Amino acid sequence: VKAVLEQCRNARAAARAFASSAHAHTARKNALLAAIARDLRLQCAAILHANAGDLEAARASGTSAPMLARLALDEPLVTLLADSVASVIALPDPVGQTITHEVRPSGISVRRVRVPLGVIAMVYESRPNVTLDASILALKTGNALVLRGGSEARRTNEVLTGVVRQALVHEGYSEDTVQLLDNQDRSAIRELVRAHAYVDLAIPRGGEALIREVVENATVPVVQHYKGVCHLYVDAGADIALTERLVLNAKMQRPSACNALECLLVHAATPSQELSKVLTALQSAGCEIRACDRVRARVPGLTLTPASPDDFGREFLAPILAVKLVGDLDEAIAHIAVYGSRHTEAIVSPDSANVLRFQAEVDAACVVANASTRFHDGGELGLGAEIGIATSRLHWRGPMGLESLTTMKWQVTGNGETRA
Amino acid sequence: VKAVLEQCRNARAAARAFASSAHAHTARKNALLAAIARDLRLQCAAILHANAGDLEAARASGTSAPMLARLALDEPLVTLLADSVASVIALPDPVGQTITHEVRPSGISVRRVRVPLGVIAMVYESRPNVTLDASILALKTGNALVLRGGSEARRTNEVLTGVVRQALVHEGYSEDTVQLLDNQDRSAIRELVRAHAYVDLAIPRGGEALIREVVENATVPVVQHYKGVCHLYVDAGADIALTERLVLNAKMQRPSACNALECLLVHAATPSQELSKVLTALQSAGCEIRACDRVRARVPGLTLTPASPDDFGREFLAPILAVKLVGDLDEAIAHIAVYGSRHTEAIVSPDSANVLRFQAEVDAACVVANASTRFHDGGELGLGAEIGIATSRLHWRGPMGLESLTTMKWQVTGNGETRA
Repeated sequence: VKAVLEQCRNARAAARAFASSAHAHTARKNALLAAIARDLRLQCAAILHANAGDLEAARASGTSAPMLARLALDEPLVTLLADSVASVIALPDPVGQTITHEVRPSGISVRRVRVPLGVIAMVYESRPNVTLDASILALKTGNALVLRGGSEARRTNEVLTGVVRQALVHEGYSEDTVQLLDNQDRSAIRELVRAHAYVDLAIPRGGEALIREVVENATVPVVQHYKGVCHLYVDAGADIALTERLVLNAKMQRPSACNALECLLVHAATPSQELSKVLTALQSAGCEIRACDRVRARVPGLTLTPASPDDFGREFLAPILAVKLVGDLDEAIAHIAVYGSRHTEAIVSPDSANVLRFQAEVDAACVVANASTRFHDGGELGLGAEIGIATSRLHWRGPMGLESLTTMKWQVTGNGETRA
Repeated sequence: VKAVLEQCRNARAAARAFASSAHAHTARKNALLAAIARDLRLQCAAILHANAGDLEAARASGTSAPMLARLALDEPLVTLLADSVASVIALPDPVGQTITHEVRPSGISVRRVRVPLGVIAMVYESRPNVTLDASILALKTGNALVLRGGSEARRTNEVLTGVVRQALVHEGYSEDTVQLLDNQDRSAIRELVRAHAYVDLAIPRGGEALIREVVENATVPVVQHYKGVCHLYVDAGADIALTERLVLNAKMQRPSACNALECLLVHAATPSQELSKVLTALQSAGCEIRACDRVRARVPGLTLTPASPDDFGREFLAPILAVKLVGDLDEAIAHIAVYGSRHTEAIVSPDSANVLRFQAEVDAACVVANASTRFHDGGELGLGAEIGIATSRLHWRGPMGLESLTTMKWQVTGNGETRA
């Protein structure tokens, strides 16, 4: 078993080699990505064999059906993963881009350029496609990667990183540019996120316990992918057909997604028959409604579950929706400030002043007006590919695409200027 | 004594109020800054009285002369601080700026806009002007601020934050928008940087011990202001007059600055009489040279201190320079990778290919070619004002001006679009 620190040190050396002129060209990095896609297709059988082993062990230990579904790969999915590499190859390379450029009165030329972050540690659970998505985006942006996946996907992750490492060697890079953590103890996570001499960023993706463990212990910077407790506030005068369409899409299109709706806030002026129409549509679509007393009093004809205090601020990840009546926009903003998770918050309103206030004052990675919360996604927002949605405030917020895996460097060029 | 968490909670509430439409306008924030400048001038006597108290206590406890100098304020300096507020008022407000804007094929309008970071914790030592600089930049960008200055400047910092808080109240803001930590125990720092429910960013500025304490204990994101072990590499064929000018400016203009030169790396092909000329000029200017054996062998006529291994990678902050002969550009880059602090690194070279390689491959916040390392400064690089130079990689690198105190938010606006 290789020590965690040894693997991190090797990653740092690999990241430095990656920065050398011979290795950092976009064309060479794209050739590397193409080699990974090719090898994925070639090694599909080996990948599925390893995945079958993981699934068998998971089944034997009584893993739940949703967990098994997240773990499972099949040939169409591996082909899809390989195909999706082409779209990342097609994306512009942010590394080397000039952010600002100015010639100063002193005569020096000042350029701020995008550079790779360095060494990224990814700590995640279940879905083995994360192993590949993270590798592809990290390599496109010139970073080294240390992966710590869940033990339930160990065999699959070993074969997947094996494919990536083989392509790295084949294309003339160090295989240590992408590494799976060898030490499988729980304590290895703590060691990894405290290795600030070698690791530049830790990205935890998974349940609350995992994220809390990383945040509490890390000495390296962390960009969190925290839960999404997403609200939709229905303002006075909102068009009811539009509201119904947005609520159904936000809640029911994919209830297990982090940008799915969890709580509906309804302005008290909303006519009872309109409120009844929206809630009935949700129930018809298979959604359980957990409503506050005032909502239930408004629509006595409907059978609604009384909301418990715990139902507000809760991420159901299921076809369940909390519903609450609020007096006005201020009360909606205040409720979201207390119960939201700063992920995705939305308003439906015909009043542009209220829309502007909501978008300005609600604190979240993404604030949506008159559209579905489900648009908070890298592809939908125009980033092309993402490795998750950051709920941190620093460095990056929202879908993490290529640019989020870079930092900047100041380049000053002169002709012998000195400071006065 | 107010509890640390209570102060942080109050800061969070103040930050939220600051985000409301009534308070966030640039004109209102600028009026607040103008009020602070006015009150600074009006209360100059009280500020100097408090500072005299700090100086007396510091002298009584045997504080060193350089420390006393850093602590001392006088009327011209207070006037200068008040005057400098005008330049920040004149700077454009980054909050509300659109970073990207796109209408997507789905029909939604996607805007990424700059927003305040939220609550910033500043942990620093000595210089009381930091109290004011941080307040001015944080308020201009709509942030709340919790300050933890050194105990040696306690009286001065109390009066300075008092001036800021009085102006806040006068202009209709919560006085808790800027707070000095009440609890003066050392343990309060740890509490502050673990208050991630309320604090969005910690900025430590001071000695290595302080920065290490913050990094080791923080659960909130940290942007470090670490030491500057700055190198200048003199490439083969470098113009010797230009080299001499840059070395003298970088080392001797202000040896105590973090962007001052600490180590000169000289290409082995540099003629001995040229090397001798540069080192003699440094000695004439009062600089002690600590040279490697190969340098000393090259210029036997000069009296040079033999460099000890500790002299490389060391921040002298004094008129002392380590000098080392290197075989080529690769050796220079490799030396900097081991001994540099990722702050400021420089090359003097007539060879543009070497300049490009150096600027691409050397990992530092600022990489300078054919100019003095002393240009790595907010004013010189065009930011107008700064609260230090970040040596972190994430979120920000280099001089921290207004933009570095903001983050972003995605604003999606539609007409009833749902996700397919």
